[in-house]
Amino acid sequence: MQPADALTHALPVVEAAATLAFAASGLVAGARKKLDVVGLCVVTTLAAFGGGTLRDVLLDRRPFYWVEHPVWLWVILGLCIAATFVLRKRGLATQLAITERAIQWPDALGLGLFTAVGTQLALAQNLPPIVAVLMGVITAVFGGVLRDIACNEVPKVFSDHQPYAVCAFFGGWVAVAGHQLGWPAEAALAASALVTCVLRVAAMLSGLKLPGWRGQ
Amino acid sequence: MQPADALTHALPVVEAAATLAFAASGLVAGARKKLDVVGLCVVTTLAAFGGGTLRDVLLDRRPFYWVEHPVWLWVILGLCIAATFVLRKRGLATQLAITERAIQWPDALGLGLFTAVGTQLALAQNLPPIVAVLMGVITAVFGGVLRDIACNEVPKVFSDHQPYAVCAFFGGWVAVAGHQLGWPAEAALAASALVTCVLRVAAMLSGLKLPGWRGQ
Amino acid sequence: MQPADALTHALPVVEAAATLAFAASGLVAGARKKLDVVGLCVVTTLAAFGGGTLRDVLLDRRPFYWVEHPVWLWVILGLCIAATFVLRKRGLATQLAITERAIQWPDALGLGLFTAVGTQLALAQNLPPIVAVLMGVITAVFGGVLRDIACNEVPKVFSDHQPYAVCAFFGGWVAVAGHQLGWPAEAALAASALVTCVLRVAAMLSGLKLPGWRGQ
Repeated sequence: MQPADALTHALPVVEAAATLAFAASGLVAGARKKLDVVGLCVVTTLAAFGGGTLRDVLLDRRPFYWVEHPVWLWVILGLCIAATFVLRKRGLATQLAITERAIQWPDALGLGLFTAVGTQLALAQNLPPIVAVLMGVITAVFGGVLRDIACNEVPKVFSDHQPYAVCAFFGGWVAVAGHQLGWPAEAALAASALVTCVLRVAAMLSGLKLPGWRGQ
Repeated sequence: MQPADALTHALPVVEAAATLAFAASGLVAGARKKLDVVGLCVVTTLAAFGGGTLRDVLLDRRPFYWVEHPVWLWVILGLCIAATFVLRKRGLATQLAITERAIQWPDALGLGLFTAVGTQLALAQNLPPIVAVLMGVITAVFGGVLRDIACNEVPKVFSDHQPYAVCAFFGGWVAVAGHQLGWPAEAALAASALVTCVLRVAAMLSGLKLPGWRGQ
Repeated sequence: MQPADALTHALPVVEAAATLAFAASGLVAGARKKLDVVGLCVVTTLAAFGGGTLRDVLLDRRPFYWVEHPVWLWVILGLCIAATFVLRKRGLATQLAITERAIQWPDALGLGLFTAVGTQLALAQNLPPIVAVLMGVITAVFGGVLRDIACNEVPKVFSDHQPYAVCAFFGGWVAVAGHQLGWPAEAALAASALVTCVLRVAAMLSGLKLPGWRGQ
């Protein structure tokens, strides 16, 4: 099997795992705020598809991912209805903490994949490199931002001092470099996603923090 | 008078009453947060037109309703300026509670009408049924969501456990069914709006609640 | 030098000063909320370009200002990274208060300029006058609204009872009047910006407040 073939086969699996992890982060956030099933559906959908949808609105691209793949809307609806029955039975806080821990890994995959895809879509429109990287970061990170705004919280990614958007930012430049060096699109995608994901995992394992505030 | 004619005559009246009810919900929310006249204007406009505008941005439709009917912007401006003078005089909390009670009924009409219209506009673009229903729900419900986000509150529709978006969801499927059965557009519109509205009124009268959270 | 030439030369300077003032308001708001460098970058970018970007999404205009002038994204990135190092060293609250005082004047320039530009762009699309004025107000004011929503605060412009959006509203009508009287675009721009700016400075100096709430 050629590397490109392996990528073609792995991609849908990575994408599905990452989308589920992003959706689960919405479920956790909504359950923490004790939202009802409607609120859960909205914040879960925002977490899963908000970043890509915002990117597409900014780039004036249609159709959205969830319009092309409407089955995902059913998956999220089912997930949220199931969650309202499963989660209310037992120790909620423990369940949410376990879920949050479990989704860290597929979430790092998603950070990588969605950064790379978003950057490449912007490059395909001949946008300037810094704008393309910004679109990659928006794709990967702004689902979580919209999720937190809908929950009336300061977005986690703005304030937790963890390297998350920063990993996407550096990984996005790999896609730009690949594009400018004339790499095949699949190679640039894989390299960008991999670098982002490795940076994120390294940040998680090392416990590295962004510089904080001392003054006041 | 033919049924279709009756509908044609009733529609503008229902639409105006519903739009005023949605706008009034913005006024109430803004007054509760003690916003100034600028804040009142914005949250009232968001409550009245935010849902349809968000739908049109997602569907890439122009012109917006308030661009085609700019007189509504004057109506809302007048309403908000009047409110800052009227509401400050007497017992504010009582006035807001009375207003909120009074608008429940035209609000239910609006929930029905805007769900049906939004779903049909999406069906006219040949979008998948679940996406069309989502657009109906967004049209009817997201004005209130944007209103509450602008007021820095958890959106009421996400957290009050009242069947509201859920009624729109079921009513939207009536428009989809009518579309697929080849009904005339007016009949599908009326049926979808009626089912949504009846479900909402039934929920209001019965005091039915969405399942809540027990764990912790 | 002709007046039109003077305007052409002054415009980029005014624009840059105003954009920096808007960006600085984002820095101040983000630092108050103790956001990390990612949060600072986002709220600063929203404060600087959110209003114009929202207007362009609503008017379906592309490219955005920051796509045409990507150097600004680097400026903001540099500003935010510098701020995390400079601001954390000494008395933060004092520094923020000084910055806020200093940017009032270029901010008033920006309020004028962006109102006039936004109104004219909408008039160029033959939109109704009240819609054009609304687009001017959105251009000038909604960067700050998005900044405050991202910071999980009630937007300042909705609740501080200071004449700010109101100045933009009246100034926008000057652009409409100039358009309908057939003035050259530069003259209408300058007149609208000047009126907005003078109104704002007058409001600042006089300490005038919008009517408040008394009831409860």
